[in-house]
Amino acid sequence: MPSTQKKSKKVIIQETAARLFRDKGYSATSMRDLAEAVNLKASSLYNHIDSKEEILRDICFENAQRFLSSMDEVEAMQASAAAKVKALLQLHVRTAMEDATSVTAFNDEWRHLNEPYLTEFKNLRRDYEQRFKQLLREGMTVGEFRRVDATVALYTIFSSVRWLYDWFQPGKSRTAEEVEAEVIAFVLAGLKA
Amino acid sequence: MPSTQKKSKKVIIQETAARLFRDKGYSATSMRDLAEAVNLKASSLYNHIDSKEEILRDICFENAQRFLSSMDEVEAMQASAAAKVKALLQLHVRTAMEDATSVTAFNDEWRHLNEPYLTEFKNLRRDYEQRFKQLLREGMTVGEFRRVDATVALYTIFSSVRWLYDWFQPGKSRTAEEVEAEVIAFVLAGLKA
Repeated sequence: MPSTQKKSKKVIIQETAARLFRDKGYSATSMRDLAEAVNLKASSLYNHIDSKEEILRDICFENAQRFLSSMDEVEAMQASAAAKVKALLQLHVRTAMEDATSVTAFNDEWRHLNEPYLTEFKNLRRDYEQRFKQLLREGMTVGEFRRVDATVALYTIFSSVRWLYDWFQPGKSRTAEEVEAEVIAFVLAGLKA
Repeated sequence: MPSTQKKSKKVIIQETAARLFRDKGYSATSMRDLAEAVNLKASSLYNHIDSKEEILRDICFENAQRFLSSMDEVEAMQASAAAKVKALLQLHVRTAMEDATSVTAFNDEWRHLNEPYLTEFKNLRRDYEQRFKQLLREGMTVGEFRRVDATVALYTIFSSVRWLYDWFQPGKSRTAEEVEAEVIAFVLAGLKA
């Protein structure tokens, strides 16, 4: 089916674009750079996407949707605050290790979105952050977590997995699963009362 | 004294350049952009620095020197592993909050150094990381810290303060001192046995 094939190509283009945005910067990345990196002629690339603005938009909103869907699921869980936060941490760690596009959406390049998308994206981001902070506060209220500033805790948690985008490579000494378990244990230990 | 004045101007140029490198990317930042941002004519800017390569080099090596000097002092301390790690964490947190140039040296833009500087910088960086990991391992050996992969712990710690570069603004609800105390408490709790 052409549509399936196209979608797969689209994912490759998105991931390649995310790497280029990170390495060269969004402004300095051209459609020509991207075409070369995915081994397509510029004219063929335009069969898949219209512009780098469109790629950035797709990456940002697809990632936001994924994180917000997971938040819906986590909020519906009958579980302790620690179990809910752990489920979200797993999502952050796995996404950081497995999906190169997420770094674009969550760390830096979303700042280059044009309006009205920038405002829309910031609202989705704020929504996710508020709901995450609410889970942290619930854990503090019931005594599972230490009493800390929820904003400081949130950003420290988000940030603590960020190196995985840039540095993590599964190696002989440690597998992805081991790293995931250690990072999550580290962060949960930092939170716990 | 002209030399003092020049040095102060140099710091302003370095900090402005660091912000431009972060926001536009190093490749996309021109000497003209920098001259405009520091409100100088391009010809005057060249009285202070020769090239953006020189700025990047100065930023990277001055920061590396600062961190390695602190490591010398910390290693010489008669103190527990936790106290030593806490002293280094304070350095990382304060630097992230107070010095815009450090983000350039430690997160992203150092990748744009030319040889032989790139190799030299990577060696200094590796030296600092190895010595930090040694402190973590010492803490594990004497039972102060949980037994974890030292590399994973190191990068998680470095990364956990990274949001301070991008997001931290002292506000009504929290001062720099409060944020510093909370981030350090969070990370040390994650390490402790």
